[in-house]
Amino acid sequence: MSLSANYSSLTSWIEVPEGSDFPIQNLPFGIIRINGGKKRVASRIGDNVIDLKTLFVLGYMENLPFEMEDFDSDSLNRMMRKGKQGTRKLRERLLKLFSTGSADLKNHEHHVNQVVVPIDQVEMCMPVEIGDYTDFYSSREHATNVGTMFRDPDNALLPNWLWIPVGYHGRASSVILSGEAIHRPKGQQKPAEDQNPVFGPCKLLDFELEMAFITYDGKALGDSISTEEAEDYIFGMVLFNDWSARDIQKWEYIPLGPFLAKNFASSISPWIVTLDALEPFKVDGPDQQPEVLDYLKYRGRKSYDINLEVLIQPDGGEENSVCKSNFKYMYWTMAQQLAHHTVNGCNVRSGDLMGSGTISGPTPDSYGSMLELAWKGTKPIPMNDGSERKFILDGDTVIMRGFSSKDGVRVGFGEVSTKVLPTK
Amino acid sequence: MSLSANYSSLTSWIEVPEGSDFPIQNLPFGIIRINGGKKRVASRIGDNVIDLKTLFVLGYMENLPFEMEDFDSDSLNRMMRKGKQGTRKLRERLLKLFSTGSADLKNHEHHVNQVVVPIDQVEMCMPVEIGDYTDFYSSREHATNVGTMFRDPDNALLPNWLWIPVGYHGRASSVILSGEAIHRPKGQQKPAEDQNPVFGPCKLLDFELEMAFITYDGKALGDSISTEEAEDYIFGMVLFNDWSARDIQKWEYIPLGPFLAKNFASSISPWIVTLDALEPFKVDGPDQQPEVLDYLKYRGRKSYDINLEVLIQPDGGEENSVCKSNFKYMYWTMAQQLAHHTVNGCNVRSGDLMGSGTISGPTPDSYGSMLELAWKGTKPIPMNDGSERKFILDGDTVIMRGFSSKDGVRVGFGEVSTKVLPTK
Repeated sequence: MSLSANYSSLTSWIEVPEGSDFPIQNLPFGIIRINGGKKRVASRIGDNVIDLKTLFVLGYMENLPFEMEDFDSDSLNRMMRKGKQGTRKLRERLLKLFSTGSADLKNHEHHVNQVVVPIDQVEMCMPVEIGDYTDFYSSREHATNVGTMFRDPDNALLPNWLWIPVGYHGRASSVILSGEAIHRPKGQQKPAEDQNPVFGPCKLLDFELEMAFITYDGKALGDSISTEEAEDYIFGMVLFNDWSARDIQKWEYIPLGPFLAKNFASSISPWIVTLDALEPFKVDGPDQQPEVLDYLKYRGRKSYDINLEVLIQPDGGEENSVCKSNFKYMYWTMAQQLAHHTVNGCNVRSGDLMGSGTISGPTPDSYGSMLELAWKGTKPIPMNDGSERKFILDGDTVIMRGFSSKDGVRVGFGEVSTKVLPTK
Repeated sequence: MSLSANYSSLTSWIEVPEGSDFPIQNLPFGIIRINGGKKRVASRIGDNVIDLKTLFVLGYMENLPFEMEDFDSDSLNRMMRKGKQGTRKLRERLLKLFSTGSADLKNHEHHVNQVVVPIDQVEMCMPVEIGDYTDFYSSREHATNVGTMFRDPDNALLPNWLWIPVGYHGRASSVILSGEAIHRPKGQQKPAEDQNPVFGPCKLLDFELEMAFITYDGKALGDSISTEEAEDYIFGMVLFNDWSARDIQKWEYIPLGPFLAKNFASSISPWIVTLDALEPFKVDGPDQQPEVLDYLKYRGRKSYDINLEVLIQPDGGEENSVCKSNFKYMYWTMAQQLAHHTVNGCNVRSGDLMGSGTISGPTPDSYGSMLELAWKGTKPIPMNDGSERKFILDGDTVIMRGFSSKDGVRVGFGEVSTKVLPTK
């Protein structure tokens, strides 16, 4: 979208608390439920949500390519089928309606009372019906750390890693919303080389600090999306915790990849922040050597400066910050990931979810998993309460937060928070 | 279901040609469209389909747990949400209505003309909306062949193979129906160890002879389905061709498994044959040594005797039978696959698709892929037209057929047929 010259001075007539992730420059999309009613599409400014179905019914969406059913829906998928041109126009309308000085809606108090709802009166729901979930493995530091620990420190990266944005398919059914607790998974583990495998609760439960992007409908099966076209097919991003059972993974993953070690749960944050809202925070991606193949080349800035943090909150205790990372550390950009995913003709659909892979930075306090932070259990992480963590314990809540900030404007993602309960 | 004593002598008042896959003992489910109209649920007897929506409207579904919307639907998912008890009752009703001697429907010629439609007047559609697609790797012969070719003939099976029904997640968006052509995929390949990877059309395009089962809604996230419960959560089976690009796979699959080598297309047959229809063809599974862990143990017969065949039809030429295999060769049963899939708490949903993995038998003519049949290209397969095949060529149509037969009753799957077009 074309950003106005006075972008950073834009304000809303809805109050936005200091340090909020949701100024009018954000305008994320999500699905809400009020008083157990029907789910509907919403946006958010400060600590209030904007009920888009009601906004439509009251006549504020005229001359936009949407029908009421697009907002009176259990998921954003239907709205997203209008494509980037549609959702961009919708975002521009919201910017206009809610900017300071705009009186169209503001002066109709009766309308405002129906459209603007305090966040604490709202239940957040899964924003999208996920068709397929793909996870990439695109942080060079993460891949290097894993290779160093489990293979050869001198050849930590596998031969294909610098050529391919390595990815694999995950499980869509077990992607859950922030706030939903999970149970520690059970599965086969092989405690020692010369022992038979055993069955029991996972002992090495881990988070993975990721972000994920959500697609619009792509092209037909057999066609490809180029790196230059990719942003037209990406709706927005969420925080993503790709839960991992390291002991189950180690025994099962050769030769077809992780399966039960991952598919018991992956958690997402409820608000999808659009690429348009993130546009001002674009930065250069890393220099890629060796030079990538033609279909992976791209021009311009395609990475994003997004500060990320992981916190562990023991049962009844305080939050402990254990990791500070940044999305800009990613070696492969989202445009490259999507171009690679479709270069063989694979089709993507509205609502597909693509995880970045664990986002580790260059320093030990920026590693995006307990596996790396505590370095295979050899460097336990101290908590404020005197306990320590090698992996995640029952009762722990893992919280991830993220935001971009520039010229006094902060655009954030809120959080994804998940408590771990004992094995069922 | 309880099979009547005179099961094999059951006949229908709808004519069933000699050797048909669809006698009244079958009664599979699918989605049809007539004259470009709205999609709806159907069954099949001989060369006629049974329009279940019309059957409902005309009042023949009374006292069954279904609504018209269950049959007036783009997919079987809604009907399947009634669970095995529901679809079993539906099947029993169809058995009753269409059996020789049953006059309720037969004597209403005006009704019969609306309900019974010749197959050649019908367009077959995708039977289910697939939530998640999982592929297993459960043929010991196939895993042994692959291990022998690419690793160590003396240790062909990987250490976890006899302990775990190895599986991985595939792509749901690119599962297509029999009859839809595919384009040869493009991708990265590494022609030689000391060379950089190159990009281009796949040179080693292969089929994989598989079958797949389709689930009912399972349990909640965190709960598991036991081997004893598994059949209650399996609706039925289809023929499944899991297309594979061997050169792309070789370069990309370490460490997270196959991705672009598989997700360009997988083809299914249109009629879902229920486990109830396959019940008479149950056989013992193979002896499993070492003894599997408790959660994978099962009692009774859980394998099925299903004859399978693969044929290659060059452009404009004749069909060439290249493989005869059988589903009973599978080492891991569907009950074990589903129990393993959910033992960590992973949830399954109505319409999930689970592939068996390539079904290879003990003899070279029973191998379920060109990779094995032509043994890495060293033993080309002759065609009737004088050409030969190491892998699949542009213009080839790959056809898979399957049926069970016992006591004069044949219950079959029809076919899954897919033509390969040149790279787009």
